[in-house]
Formats: sequence, C-alpha cells, structure tokens
Amino acid sequence: MNSGYGAFAIIGGDKRQLFCARSLSDDGYAVTLGGFDSIAEMKNIELTTPFEAALMSDTIILPLPCLNSKGQIPDPFSKDNISLTDDLITAMKGKRIFCGMQTRLSEYCPKLTGRVFDYYEREEFAVYNAQATAEGALEVAMQTFEGTIHGSECLVCGYGRIGKVLTSMLRSLGAKVTVSARKPSDLAWIELAGAKAVRTDELYKLGEFNIIFNTVPAKIFTPILLAKIAMNAVVIDLASGEGGVDKYAAERMGITHIHALSLPGKAAPKTAGEIIKNTIYHILEEDDR
Amino acid sequence: MNSGYGAFAIIGGDKRQLFCARSLSDDGYAVTLGGFDSIAEMKNIELTTPFEAALMSDTIILPLPCLNSKGQIPDPFSKDNISLTDDLITAMKGKRIFCGMQTRLSEYCPKLTGRVFDYYEREEFAVYNAQATAEGALEVAMQTFEGTIHGSECLVCGYGRIGKVLTSMLRSLGAKVTVSARKPSDLAWIELAGAKAVRTDELYKLGEFNIIFNTVPAKIFTPILLAKIAMNAVVIDLASGEGGVDKYAAERMGITHIHALSLPGKAAPKTAGEIIKNTIYHILEEDDR
Amino acid sequence: MNSGYGAFAIIGGDKRQLFCARSLSDDGYAVTLGGFDSIAEMKNIELTTPFEAALMSDTIILPLPCLNSKGQIPDPFSKDNISLTDDLITAMKGKRIFCGMQTRLSEYCPKLTGRVFDYYEREEFAVYNAQATAEGALEVAMQTFEGTIHGSECLVCGYGRIGKVLTSMLRSLGAKVTVSARKPSDLAWIELAGAKAVRTDELYKLGEFNIIFNTVPAKIFTPILLAKIAMNAVVIDLASGEGGVDKYAAERMGITHIHALSLPGKAAPKTAGEIIKNTIYHILEEDDR
Amino acid sequence: MNSGYGAFAIIGGDKRQLFCARSLSDDGYAVTLGGFDSIAEMKNIELTTPFEAALMSDTIILPLPCLNSKGQIPDPFSKDNISLTDDLITAMKGKRIFCGMQTRLSEYCPKLTGRVFDYYEREEFAVYNAQATAEGALEVAMQTFEGTIHGSECLVCGYGRIGKVLTSMLRSLGAKVTVSARKPSDLAWIELAGAKAVRTDELYKLGEFNIIFNTVPAKIFTPILLAKIAMNAVVIDLASGEGGVDKYAAERMGITHIHALSLPGKAAPKTAGEIIKNTIYHILEEDDR
Repeated sequence: MNSGYGAFAIIGGDKRQLFCARSLSDDGYAVTLGGFDSIAEMKNIELTTPFEAALMSDTIILPLPCLNSKGQIPDPFSKDNISLTDDLITAMKGKRIFCGMQTRLSEYCPKLTGRVFDYYEREEFAVYNAQATAEGALEVAMQTFEGTIHGSECLVCGYGRIGKVLTSMLRSLGAKVTVSARKPSDLAWIELAGAKAVRTDELYKLGEFNIIFNTVPAKIFTPILLAKIAMNAVVIDLASGEGGVDKYAAERMGITHIHALSLPGKAAPKTAGEIIKNTIYHILEEDDR
Repeated sequence: MNSGYGAFAIIGGDKRQLFCARSLSDDGYAVTLGGFDSIAEMKNIELTTPFEAALMSDTIILPLPCLNSKGQIPDPFSKDNISLTDDLITAMKGKRIFCGMQTRLSEYCPKLTGRVFDYYEREEFAVYNAQATAEGALEVAMQTFEGTIHGSECLVCGYGRIGKVLTSMLRSLGAKVTVSARKPSDLAWIELAGAKAVRTDELYKLGEFNIIFNTVPAKIFTPILLAKIAMNAVVIDLASGEGGVDKYAAERMGITHIHALSLPGKAAPKTAGEIIKNTIYHILEEDDR
Repeated sequence: MNSGYGAFAIIGGDKRQLFCARSLSDDGYAVTLGGFDSIAEMKNIELTTPFEAALMSDTIILPLPCLNSKGQIPDPFSKDNISLTDDLITAMKGKRIFCGMQTRLSEYCPKLTGRVFDYYEREEFAVYNAQATAEGALEVAMQTFEGTIHGSECLVCGYGRIGKVLTSMLRSLGAKVTVSARKPSDLAWIELAGAKAVRTDELYKLGEFNIIFNTVPAKIFTPILLAKIAMNAVVIDLASGEGGVDKYAAERMGITHIHALSLPGKAAPKTAGEIIKNTIYHILEEDDR
Repeated sequence: MNSGYGAFAIIGGDKRQLFCARSLSDDGYAVTLGGFDSIAEMKNIELTTPFEAALMSDTIILPLPCLNSKGQIPDPFSKDNISLTDDLITAMKGKRIFCGMQTRLSEYCPKLTGRVFDYYEREEFAVYNAQATAEGALEVAMQTFEGTIHGSECLVCGYGRIGKVLTSMLRSLGAKVTVSARKPSDLAWIELAGAKAVRTDELYKLGEFNIIFNTVPAKIFTPILLAKIAMNAVVIDLASGEGGVDKYAAERMGITHIHALSLPGKAAPKTAGEIIKNTIYHILEEDDR
C-alpha cells in the first residue's frame, strides 16, 4: 500500500472521477468512492456514502466543477446530487481538499477554508486538457466529415493552447491547415508549425474549407464569414459559453455545425481522470517541499 | 465543359460512386448517374436508368466490387440491384469500362471484353486506400478507447501498407507504438519510424496494450495471446476475410473487439470516391500515351 | 519596379544585409548598397558610398547591431567601419530608418530621432530567428557528434523559443530528447512534444547524454553537473553573454564544448537576411495602416 | 564478461570498425583489434597484430569493403594495408568471419570457405545505412546552402531507401519537398509523405530549387535539366559510381555540386560501426536458431 499522501476519498463526479480513482488505486493508494450508488463494485476500491468516504480519508477530491449552480456536488452516478450538509462539511474539515472551480466552493461553503486546492486553475492542467480537447475535436471531425483528414482543407481559428495542439495534429495527419491569429509573433509560430498563417480580420479573404475549428470565444463566424468560407464545411466550435459561431445563421444556411464542449470528459474520460490525478500529485509535491 | 476523356456514366454503387461523380463533374466532365433512383437531384449531373446512362457516355464506371455474388451490379441507392441485361451489355460494348474486381465481370459477362480496366488492381489505388483505411481505423479507435491516443500503448500487427500509414499516424499523435513484423528489414524500417519493433512470433512476450490493430489475415490472436496482451485492450481487426482474431475467444474473455472492414467507403466515402476518380485518370493517361 | 515603400538603402553589415538587399531587389524594389567596397557588382543593385546611398533612398536599413561599441556602423565588406559623420546623419534625417538594437543609435546619435524602427525588438523577428538558430545548432551538432542524431540521447536545457524549435527538430529526426525547464506548464508542453521533461534542479539525477544543448544564460553546467551527465557528450552552448557552461572546467575535463553565438548570420545568412526584410515589411504595413 | 558469441577480432578498417569494437566491448565481449598500429590504447580492448587477433578469437570481423582492389584488407590506421598471408588465412580458418562485400574475399581467397557472412548484403543493414546516409546528406546540405532547410525548395530525385528517409527528414524540418519517381505507386507514397510527387521524365517542367539531392545512378542531370532547375541550387549527388550529375557541365555552369559518397562512415562513424555490430548480432541469432 502506497501511503505517501495517505488515503483518498473521491466524492461525486462523472466517469473522469472513476478513472481518477482507478489510477490512484493502481498507484497503490487506498481509495474510497462516496456517492457512486449505481456502481456495484470496483476492484480494490471501497464504495460508500459521501460522509463516510470523507471520514475515512486524508485527502478529498471533488469533481470539476465541484458544485453545480444549486451548490450541490454533481453526482451523475447517483439519483440525486450530493448536498453539502453540515455533517459532510464537518467530516471534510482540516483535510486536504482538491476541487475544480474553487470559487464556487468559497461561495456556497465559506466555512470550508484551509487546505483547499483548485486543480482546474493549474496551468499544466490546462495544457494537458488542451491536448485531450484537441483530440476530442479531431474525433468529432473524423465522425462528421465525409472525407479523410489527410488532404482536407482545415481552418483553425485561434492559436491558444487548443489551437496549437490541434494545428500540430492536423498537420501531422496530412491536412492543409490555415490558422488565424492576431499577434505577429503568433503568425510567425503558425508558419513555423507548417501551417498557413492569416490575420483574424482577414479571414473573409479566404476560400472554402472542409473543416473549420473555432477556439475563440467571440462571434467571429458571422453570416457573412460563414457564407464566404463555410458553405461546404463542417464547423466545430470549441469556444466556451456562447461559442464563436452564429448558430441560427449556420442552421438557416444548412451548414453542419457542432458546439463541442467538455470534450476531455466525453471523448477521453480515462485520460481526463489521469490528468486530474497527476495535477493533484504536482500540487501535493509542491505543498510538501 | 472538359471533354478530355469524353462523357462519363456511373452505374450502380454506394456513396463513393456519388462522390466520384461529384468530383468528375467538378472537373468539368459531363456525368450521368444510372440506377440511383432514391436520389432526387444532383447539381450538374443527370440521373437516369443504367441503360440510358451507358448509351450517353464514352466511359462507364462500375462500383467496387462491380458485381455481387449473384452477378448483379450492387445498387444500394435503388430498391433492386442492377442486372446485366443484354440491352445494358450492348449499350456498354466498345466503351471504356472501369470497374473494381474485373474477374467477376469476366466470369458473369465474358462477352464484355475489350477496353475493360480494373482500378482496384492498381497499386497506387491500394496505397491511397491504405491511407483512408488507416484513418478509418484511427477513428474507430478514438470512438472506442476511453483515453486519448496520445500516451496510449498501441500495437500494430503487420507492416504492410496499412500498417505503415497507421504507425506513422499513431506516432505523430503521441502514442507509444509497437509494431510486429517478420522480416529483419521491416523491423529496421519500424525502428526508423520511431516505433518499437518486435518479431511476430515474439508477441506473446509483450505486456498489456490499450489499443491493438491487426492487419494480418492469419489467426495470430489466439486465446493465449489475447490473454497475455489484450485483456484491457480495444482490438481493431482490419484483416480481410475471417480476420486475425479468435472472435469467440475474445467475446468470452470480455475483450472489446471490432472487425472493421471496408473502412474507406464507410469512414471517408468522399475521399474513397476521389481515389477511384484519380486512379481512373492515371489509367486514362497511360492508355493515351 | 515595385514602389510600394519607395527606394531602399542598405548601409553596412555582413552577408545578411547582402541577402536582405537581394531579396528586396527580387521583390522589385530599387536598392542601393552603401559601404560594401569589396563587392564588385550585384545584379540590379547599385553600389556606392554610405552618404550617396542614404541620399538616394526613402528607407535606410542599418545592420544588427546598428553600431559597434565605438559608435560605428559595422562594415565587414569594407576596410573600415562606417562613421556616423554629420553629412551622413543629415542625409539620413527625415527618412524611415530600420536598425537592430536602436538603443545604441540613441546613445551615439541622439539627433537621429523620428521615424526610427528596431526590427530586432519585434517578437516575430525573435521567433523566426529562433528557428534559424536552432537549425544552426543542429548543424553544429551534426558536424561535431560522431554518430547520427537519430537514436542519440539529447538534452535541451531551457524551453524558450530556441528550446521549443530545437526539441521539435530533434524529435522529428529520431533523437531521444530530454528537456529541462522550471515551470510545471512548460514541463507539460515538453511531454506533449514527445520529449522527456525534467526539472532544471533535477538535471543532476540524469545519466549520460550524447549531445547537450544549453539555451539558458545562467551557469547551470557546473563541474559537478558536467561530470555527471556530459563526460562523453558534445556540449553546444547557445546562451548569450558568458553562456551557461563552465568553460574552464569543460576544457580540463576533456569535454567537447562549443559556444555557438550569432548562428543565423553564420549558418544561414540568406534566411537571416530574409527575416530582416520580412520584419521590416511587417513594420511598414503597420505603420501605414 | 559476455560470452554469448565468444571472443571477437576486428582486423583492419576505419573509424567504423573502432566504434564497432567499442560497442562490442561495451556489451561485455572480449575484443581484440588487429592492425591498428597508430592507436596507442583503447579501454578494455587489446591491440595486436592481425595474425594474433585472428588466433585469439572465435569470430572475425573484416571491414567494408573487406579487401581493396589489390586483395589487401584496408587499414587506414596502419602504414600499410594488411595482406592475406597464408599464416593469417590459417589462423582465420574454421572461425566465423563477417565481412562486407564477400565476393572480393571469394575472388582473392577462395580457400576461405565455410562460415563466412556478408553483413553488407543484409537488407536491414541497407535500411539503417540509408538512414545514416540521409542524415549525412542533410549535414552536407546544411553546410553548403546559405539559407535554412526550413522554407527551402528541395528536390529529391529517386524514392528508394535513401530517398524515403531524406524526404521524411526534409519535410519534418519544414522544407518544401518535391520528389521524383517513376512508378505510380511510388508517386502515391510520396504524396502521402507530404511531398509533391513528379514523374522523373517531367523534371524539366519544374522551376528552380535551392537544394537538389540525387539518389539515382543514371545521368538524369544533363546540362539541359541543370539549366532549367539547378542554376541557383546546391546539388548533392548521392548516387554511387559515376553519379547522376554531369559534373563537367555543372562546373562550367558554376553550379555548386558535391558528389557525396560513403557518408555513414564519414559523417557518423559511430552509428555506422553500431549498424555493423547489430547486423552481425542478427546474423548470429539466425545462425544459432
């Protein structure tokens, strides 16, 4: 039994948390799952109530996001979400708590102070998550586009983390890739990555694409731009919130359009769970140093 | 209107033939579709009966395979498949005929001699098709495996055309790739491709994989080998005929197992149709030289 | 004749400036070279004195650095460097002046104000220059190391611009690459790039390397670290100033050690000159907008 | 001490044989060098005469080629080459002998029959050697061309082993690569490798290149073709024998032209020696099976 960081409780969450539990257990840690009622058994892992799980552990892992808009811990593997009862809060107190989107915890549960860490805020989490997101986007593109990625005309709008990974993937699969960005230094990096660089405000000068990936959370894909470059394209919008595509226009124009959110959890929950685990390890290492 | 090679008729076939027609028409050729009853209209392309399509054309394109086991032209876009009536044969005579698997045509229709060409037999067709097959296999893997390809342990069994393309794709997406082959020179190429090379008869010495791709049409994946390396793997069998995996054993052992055949037509009919068109162009060029 | 940005004068500088002139002239611009006495002729380009070149042009390009430590324009293609005489300054006044390291110009020639631009300060210049530097470093490694890059054990110390490009190059040539950095997010990017990531303060835990590239301008390679990982390595130090390697120790220990500075100008003056030209174009475009 | 294959003698040869000896010794084998008079000492390796080395060993390794045109073993590390005296032949008899270009041995020394193996004839040797050759060619290109490989226009003539590896290297460094071949299936593979494919007999239709690599041992580069595509190019001829470039024409036309032969031994003797060793291991494994 690995006791380096003590016993872990995983309370609430979707498949990612299950894979996180699996991976912690495979590393030799004692792991207790709290609130996964619909699961009958899991090798080497104890299943119990959130309260007991919290009691039995040194470190508690909450999902991403840790609380929904009603202040409950999301629990898709149970009939109901988990409420932060006083008992549960008492059982959690003084322990190391890892969660995604800590501000929600602070809002709904200001008493829970102390050793609370937000794995979602770590930059390496964002980097690995971008990788999983880009692969999920590639999967969506493969399923939707009727040709191969190889030889297809692809546009990646935005050259942040996801745009970078996606550009590299598409290039290495043999697509012809154009990437839009605003900064001259980004345009330089794009060219070095083997893609065609274009300023975002000159997208309308381009021709038609087969697949368009948007990563920019701003309404760049107006009806005019869609008419110019997207009439025969599959448009995959990865931007959070409202996305960057005028959905109603896209629909009216008969353009295949997918707003693909939370891809890591959907397309690769195993990897997404391992990313959570590894980020928690990093935080624990730094905390111990 | 491009009249380089005259007018084309496409008689029978699935989505690939539709995309082949689309692409020929976009190149400026007159194209007539024969036997696609369930399609109402297609821009710039005439829809009619197989007999009339044959009459109106200089060059006739039959699907892959050109005839099913009953000697009919497969026609999924119609209620019935197309019979090779004497009228149809007469209308086809003396014209250039392109088909896949010409031996079936020779068997059922020995009268149809002369300028008959088999695009499926061309080696460049096989190369491009291997690319589309490998991408289709990657898509299946992405859909089935719960982690990302990046970081996954992959095995590619066989280093022929498909194995080569698949290895390169998986490597460039960041998988850890092992490839099995028999010839020392293939093992050398595998290492140069950045993968781990292993002799096929030593596969049983390896550990567990996440994703296994088989391309070898021989029963390599016996229960013993499956138990050794595939217990937690997704197994994707690309070998034709009976495949290379003991399906019953795989099922009994609870191993996720997919026999994925005819991937280009299923996963990328647009590209598959364009491959047919380009191969026909090559043959026409050589025939004219 | 391209008159978009008027006539150019290139005053002083090494081969990079000649290739910059060549490339401007090939784009259709009138180009005059000032101070390249040892060159007899150059197709479509006029050769004259710095003063006349300045007089004849709308835009003046000075080298990188624009002035040496004595306040003169470096002029390796002439017997003497070029002095900033009052005549020359008068001829330059009011024109667009492009230079590298503008602060030196401000120091020695405070009168020359107005439309002076520093191409060396632009981030896209730094990005492209990093590419040329990394390729130059690869060339040095190939010349010095007695094996192939393929299969060699390489260490890249630092993951800034040069480190990023170098890592990608080495990986794609089949080297086994370890990269050191400090930030967890950099370590994540390094892993995504297919290299082994290691914290800079844990370099001493590693084994021996064949080739070591240093990009960090701090004395990381102490005798102790050299003894641990570099005894049989070629060490290529790309860090500016004093570099990151204890040279005296490396020499005493018999370690092959090269402090490779100003690689773009030495290894690829043609590309280095074109980078200067393209950066100037970017600045001119923005200035006009 | 590794005694798997007994004691090795390395008789004659250049730096490659020294690195082969080094690598055998590092694997734990007893190694004796015969005929390397100018070398004073080598860690863990005995230096002696060819006769004594042969006597002391179970397995004898001769260089590539094993005999020069006078029937002597090439011995650049000695004043004279090594003659196959009767004594030496007697000492070698009955032992396993590895050599490059066995036909020369059969010609000059027909008595030496039995367990003689030619590592140079093995296909995996040719594959690994192609890798080392391609890297050597890249090194020559980097030294000679005044720009970066990235962004340069490269032509690779021929798509055999060396052409394949070179194409992949150049592409991954960001060059724009055109490759010529004759077979339609090779043209298909070239396109899949991300390069532009052109039929060898249509090379004259192309524009100018920066760097041209020839791998075809036929006089393809006539004055007419050189005038069309090579006036500003660096031409690196890798074809054996007379090469594929009209040297006199290239010289007259002022085209930079390098006939680069035996690159593995020159550019990467360490790797070349290890390739010899690994091929010998493969032969020994098969011989034992």
